[in-house]
Amino acid sequence: MIRKYKFGRPFETGAVTAPMEAVQGKPPYGEIWCGDKVPACEEKRPAGAFSYRYVLHDEDIVYGLGEANRGINKRGYQYVSDCTDQPYHTEDKRSLYGAHNFIVISGRETFGLFFDYPSRMTFDIGYEQTERMTVSCERADLYLYVIEGDSAYDVVKQFRKIIGRSYIPPKFAFGFGQSRWGYRTKEDFRHVADGYRSNRIPLDMIYMDIDYMQDYKDFTVNEGEYPDFAAFVAEMKERGIRLIPIIDAGVKVEEGYPVYEEGVRGGYFCKREDGSEFTAVVWPGETHFPDFLNEKAARWFGDLYRGLTDQGIEGFWNDMNEPAIFYSQEGVRELQQVISSCQEMEHGMEDVRRIQEKAGSLANAGADYKRFYHAVNGQMIRHDQVHNLYGYHMTKAAAEAFGRIAPNRRLLLFSRASYIGMHRYGGIWTGDNHSWWSHLLLNLKMLPSLNMCGFLYVGADLGGFGADATRELLLRWLAFGVFTPLMRDHAALGTRDQEAYRFGDTEAFRGIIETRYRLLPYLYSEYLKAAYTDDMYCRPLAFVYPEDDFARGVEDQLIIGDEIMIAPVYTEHAKGRYVYLPEEMRFVKLKKDNYYIEETLEPGHHYVEVAVDEVPLFIRAGKCIPLVDAAQCVEEIDRQTMKWIGFEGASYERYDDDGVHADSRVRRTVDSM
Amino acid sequence: MIRKYKFGRPFETGAVTAPMEAVQGKPPYGEIWCGDKVPACEEKRPAGAFSYRYVLHDEDIVYGLGEANRGINKRGYQYVSDCTDQPYHTEDKRSLYGAHNFIVISGRETFGLFFDYPSRMTFDIGYEQTERMTVSCERADLYLYVIEGDSAYDVVKQFRKIIGRSYIPPKFAFGFGQSRWGYRTKEDFRHVADGYRSNRIPLDMIYMDIDYMQDYKDFTVNEGEYPDFAAFVAEMKERGIRLIPIIDAGVKVEEGYPVYEEGVRGGYFCKREDGSEFTAVVWPGETHFPDFLNEKAARWFGDLYRGLTDQGIEGFWNDMNEPAIFYSQEGVRELQQVISSCQEMEHGMEDVRRIQEKAGSLANAGADYKRFYHAVNGQMIRHDQVHNLYGYHMTKAAAEAFGRIAPNRRLLLFSRASYIGMHRYGGIWTGDNHSWWSHLLLNLKMLPSLNMCGFLYVGADLGGFGADATRELLLRWLAFGVFTPLMRDHAALGTRDQEAYRFGDTEAFRGIIETRYRLLPYLYSEYLKAAYTDDMYCRPLAFVYPEDDFARGVEDQLIIGDEIMIAPVYTEHAKGRYVYLPEEMRFVKLKKDNYYIEETLEPGHHYVEVAVDEVPLFIRAGKCIPLVDAAQCVEEIDRQTMKWIGFEGASYERYDDDGVHADSRVRRTVDSM
Repeated sequence: MIRKYKFGRPFETGAVTAPMEAVQGKPPYGEIWCGDKVPACEEKRPAGAFSYRYVLHDEDIVYGLGEANRGINKRGYQYVSDCTDQPYHTEDKRSLYGAHNFIVISGRETFGLFFDYPSRMTFDIGYEQTERMTVSCERADLYLYVIEGDSAYDVVKQFRKIIGRSYIPPKFAFGFGQSRWGYRTKEDFRHVADGYRSNRIPLDMIYMDIDYMQDYKDFTVNEGEYPDFAAFVAEMKERGIRLIPIIDAGVKVEEGYPVYEEGVRGGYFCKREDGSEFTAVVWPGETHFPDFLNEKAARWFGDLYRGLTDQGIEGFWNDMNEPAIFYSQEGVRELQQVISSCQEMEHGMEDVRRIQEKAGSLANAGADYKRFYHAVNGQMIRHDQVHNLYGYHMTKAAAEAFGRIAPNRRLLLFSRASYIGMHRYGGIWTGDNHSWWSHLLLNLKMLPSLNMCGFLYVGADLGGFGADATRELLLRWLAFGVFTPLMRDHAALGTRDQEAYRFGDTEAFRGIIETRYRLLPYLYSEYLKAAYTDDMYCRPLAFVYPEDDFARGVEDQLIIGDEIMIAPVYTEHAKGRYVYLPEEMRFVKLKKDNYYIEETLEPGHHYVEVAVDEVPLFIRAGKCIPLVDAAQCVEEIDRQTMKWIGFEGASYERYDDDGVHADSRVRRTVDSM
Repeated sequence: MIRKYKFGRPFETGAVTAPMEAVQGKPPYGEIWCGDKVPACEEKRPAGAFSYRYVLHDEDIVYGLGEANRGINKRGYQYVSDCTDQPYHTEDKRSLYGAHNFIVISGRETFGLFFDYPSRMTFDIGYEQTERMTVSCERADLYLYVIEGDSAYDVVKQFRKIIGRSYIPPKFAFGFGQSRWGYRTKEDFRHVADGYRSNRIPLDMIYMDIDYMQDYKDFTVNEGEYPDFAAFVAEMKERGIRLIPIIDAGVKVEEGYPVYEEGVRGGYFCKREDGSEFTAVVWPGETHFPDFLNEKAARWFGDLYRGLTDQGIEGFWNDMNEPAIFYSQEGVRELQQVISSCQEMEHGMEDVRRIQEKAGSLANAGADYKRFYHAVNGQMIRHDQVHNLYGYHMTKAAAEAFGRIAPNRRLLLFSRASYIGMHRYGGIWTGDNHSWWSHLLLNLKMLPSLNMCGFLYVGADLGGFGADATRELLLRWLAFGVFTPLMRDHAALGTRDQEAYRFGDTEAFRGIIETRYRLLPYLYSEYLKAAYTDDMYCRPLAFVYPEDDFARGVEDQLIIGDEIMIAPVYTEHAKGRYVYLPEEMRFVKLKKDNYYIEETLEPGHHYVEVAVDEVPLFIRAGKCIPLVDAAQCVEEIDRQTMKWIGFEGASYERYDDDGVHADSRVRRTVDSM
């Protein structure tokens, strides 16, 4: 049962696709303060603000918020939906790249809340006061959906039904991909391809970060390096490897650059109040931001992807689309003012601190987001009021264009910034994490929250983007990454080389990555099921064993699909880990060369040993999964090698399709052990 | 068996107190490259560099490095001994505030290495290559001590014998202390005292961070606020609370400020090559750094503490003594040059980036540490060559002065920067951590490593210094902090209020902190034993159960003293944790109001439940510990309430002394259950 409430004049975000009428009256749970009805204790709030309150009970767990920091259970902290280019995901950070305002309270009462509001919104979930949840924003212009169900999981499934089917990428996107900020030349890419192929480590994609472009100009390639880009794309595809270029939100300001000139001519860029194009400095230097919320501009930008698809490209990642801003012209002017007022450094410490502070706060400044506007249906809307929709609409623009550019063909597409609704158009990667053990665990905890919000094709930079990875960290992280739909190793410029063949003894890496391919029929099948039935690909144990008190609290194991549980090792030097089994399970460790070992474990607590070259998984009681022989890329997987592991007598319904076409028929095959 | 090797012309650091002759020949383990004998693969090293290599075996564990990042087992990463004011202790950081060059290799071969070298030194412990350990530094002027023993623990005990007895603080310093950067007025301090006393939460100390001073001038107090500081100190002591002021390394440059004027007159400050005083900006604005390596200057500075001890102060914390530098005059000149070359911002992005980079890299710049000198025995020594001794010598200066100022009286003293040798003069706190769950665990992992290097009176900022704590984090961290000799809650300016009475339901906090006082006879006794027998106060399980393969790998449990094992809860939302028992143990959960529950657990793996208001501990088989009733401060502990918990028939030898005098006789009492 879902009820929709309307407050003020909401912006239509398109998050919810199901037609629904708003009902009158007040929601059955919690209290709402909005508009002028501001309670005494809230006097500091501006008039017109919105605030939702709920008293949490001891046993309540709060799920949701998609790409948010900290636990599967969001209780105890404060989160802010405000898409941010945040490169340090330490435990205290309140905002990351996404804004996913869906939560489920599960305990004494069980219900879900979706706050459809495209600007900054704060979720205090028992932080200021342990027993109080407050969701608030500045303007009481939003839709609130209240979802009742039999369980948290049921609430999620109902929510997923109203927001539309999740994006399904082509099958090759379920292979393993390698990325690094800094690959520039053909030789760089060939070297990576050689490194994988010569070590027999499977690989399906190499990602092209910003350096493939000419001066970071969208939809260009470095002219000197790629005189015949299509031939190079074909050369790599010949080796079973797709090149996946990045596209940034900002368009370089440069006379003679057609994208810039067309954009200006068409009036497709975001403008200041005075009607001039807003200028922000990002990688290419000065750029304008396409107005993705404007239908004409979105269509124009989307069609530009054709320049690359025409050369054989089959996938993209959209980046910097919070949008990230290094600085604006206005910001630099302010810095210049600070500098000139400190010219003589006569105030010494104070002057230096002012310069440091101003220089250090130019990036992603809130003030800049109030300096430009979107033209939506003839209305000028200040960016900050719809900030959280920008990355979503960039990706929507691309996906809708793909329908025109390559009708019926599935292209790979994922984004950094997002809002609920974008899950219909692409996946996301969870941004610039670090080579920290704590981020391996954060990667795990985010997954079910993202699934709840419809984002199924998701993954983190395995091995960590910033800082230097160690061999052990990368191995353990890959062993977890085997189960994330997007499985990509990515690292930042200036960090240690992080390709799987860089750490000596490549056999261990080969064994781990091979496992991805051996499990691919299962993982792909479960992904298709989740997408087609509006379900979750991975779930917290609490959703599968809601009556099991211990399982409800587990935050370092997941259920993948319906058949398996995973419990990755996420601590340095560990020889294994503790794991909780809510039921009898078959414990399987997959190793290189299509080898595995298995044993049956009783329900309860166990310490299981897992070597760094093993991928552990647990098959649930009475279930089985398919396993094929490893291959060097998805297309080379030989379905004839399929066998079954798990419990005798178990059967499995496998979903598959051609992996290429949007309208590909889903084949369902039932096999038994 | 300890052998000492000499390379080049080492600086005499005073770390080792036992007289030892250097031996000829090469060490029995590993290989050394030094001076001109640089191997081919090391050609990039400057001539004259030093490098020690050892091939690690699969089973080897490497212990040590004191206040270093990451695990108890240091394998797999690279660490740099280079005392640094590093405010973000993320997992990738290589240097923190201390330089503790002692490691123990434990595995196929077991031996210890102490590199007595006071400048920057790199420990690559299987990071670049899994099986290779390389210890290197720029100049081959050092002593290397190679220690052989029956076990890692035996090697540690031998090492501790040659570096002199660890510092023993007064007994009140084993109470609980509250701190916050931002306490300024008498009312601020009274408010904290009231908060604790009115809620019946025990408290022994309130720390005075920089704001108690007049303009951050060492050995001053705010004149308007504390016209009679001695009376205020007495007022607090009347309530059972000691005030513990901070002393920073830098002395404010200000005409008329006696410390500055005396320092200049005496030539006590570090000088540039041209003989002028080096000026660095820190909290007070422009400061000079006392030359603590110069005996006369050290004596002068140490005697200045009398200004505060004469007013009743009985303890200090020495801060900013890496030394931390916000910027130097030279650095600001460079910034000005960058700014003037970018005046017109004609290069746009490039100019802004140059200003940002320069402004952002002024602090703790390596170049600044080459700009000033120490006068040691008539020689001018450039600071960077002895950088890691600065905090050590500041604290040594203070401790030696205390012997003159308050003969035979034990004063509390701890420092931020340190080097082995300083453990004889004071303790350390582990600097500016964060309110992150990962830092609770880091706190635990650092403790035994610090103990190995002689630092017994140690602790981290409980609840975390930077960022906002949550109620649950603070409770869990305090429950662990009960066992750290320095037990202090400290938080940074601008973060959430973090005193134990700030989070509602203060009863839970009272119960946790009371536990510290109930265990104090045991904790103090074990501390005295460790100090007087050159032993460790807390040990990794590997040192106590070396034959137990599983115990050797445990990195989240510790043995405290000889009787108990701890296994704190360090994850959010957890209802308990897994724990490994190498032997039968009595599991005790201490609660408020002198209540506890206990049960006997078999050896092996367990999941134990621990509520947020409980302090868990495990009494080892056949042992017992004393427990007293809680008190509001250390002096109020009533020894008559002592009872015993543990195993029937067990006996315990308790050490005690008057807690006040340096020459207090240690009383040993044996009691049985």
